[in-house]
Order: sequence, then structure tokens, then C-alpha cells
Amino acid sequence: MPRVVVDVMPKPEILDPQGKAVLGALPRLGFTGVTDVRQGKRFELEVEGELTEEVLEQVREMAATLLSNPVIEDFTVAVETTPAAVETVS
Amino acid sequence: MPRVVVDVMPKPEILDPQGKAVLGALPRLGFTGVTDVRQGKRFELEVEGELTEEVLEQVREMAATLLSNPVIEDFTVAVETTPAAVETVS
Repeated sequence: MPRVVVDVMPKPEILDPQGKAVLGALPRLGFTGVTDVRQGKRFELEVEGELTEEVLEQVREMAATLLSNPVIEDFTVAVETTPAAVETVS
Repeated sequence: MPRVVVDVMPKPEILDPQGKAVLGALPRLGFTGVTDVRQGKRFELEVEGELTEEVLEQVREMAATLLSNPVIEDFTVAVETTPAAVETVS
């Protein structure tokens, strides 16, 4: 069954308190070398049938209306072809 | 500056109430054809200097201790080479 991934991230100009909290916690845990952290959401959608351009357009509409707030968030819609589609190192 | 992406998702056997809420809302908004939704977190980390295997090992440790709860969540660590590294359709 095809899987579509929607990533929702706070826009660059929007303050991200969750990311800042993680960034602040890292040195306290002994981790150094990270200069910025942004936290967003990831949605994995299982879609029925074939992944046509029409279906992807529907997913983009879902992302813009339900999954993200376009005023403060950006989103990307990506088709997950295989679990190794991105350069996964863990 | 190199960017590392940590995706944290609830394990398949773990109930995901956020994903279920989205799944339930979709037909009410007129969207059909989605059979399952899982919701997780996405972290984008800006890392200082070069992305060595040692740095990635540190990021994996951050992911396992601070960014995820390994009892109920899985995570992947991926290097974002270019914004177009994944097949982004929006």
C-alpha cells in the first residue's frame, strides 16, 4: 500500500519553543556541536489504491487544511517509495 | 552548515491517538481514500563543522535519549544533503 509522508515544520521566521527547549537541553546532557534545532511534525498516510497525481493533490489539500497551519508552518508532501528512499544512517 | 534530520514515530504496535484523530477527521472534511495515519515528530538539527561518523553517532545518542522514548517510539537519523534529496512533490 503506497505511503505518503507529510512533513510539517514551523516557518523559519516563526519562533519554535519546542526546538529551543531541545537545543537548551543538549549541552546539559553533554552533547555539543548542535547550533540549532527545529521541531515539527511528521505524518505517514497509508493511501488506498494507486498514487495518482489526483491523490497527491488531495493529500496536499489535507496538509494545507488539517495537518498544518499555513500561517505559521510549511509542509512538504513526499512519496515513500521504499524505507531506504532517504539516506538513513540508523 | 550540515543538517541532520531525526524522525521519531510511534512503534507500529503502539496506539497512536493523534494519528487516529486525524484519520477520523479526514472523512468529515470530505477526504477519502486514506486508510491509516500515524503522527510522529521531525527534528531538524544544524550541526557545526563536518558531518563525521562520530557526529552522527552523537546524534543517534541524542535521538535515543532526548528526542525519542525508545520504549514506544522508533527513530531514524538521516543526513539532509539537499532540500530535494527526497522525492518532494510539493
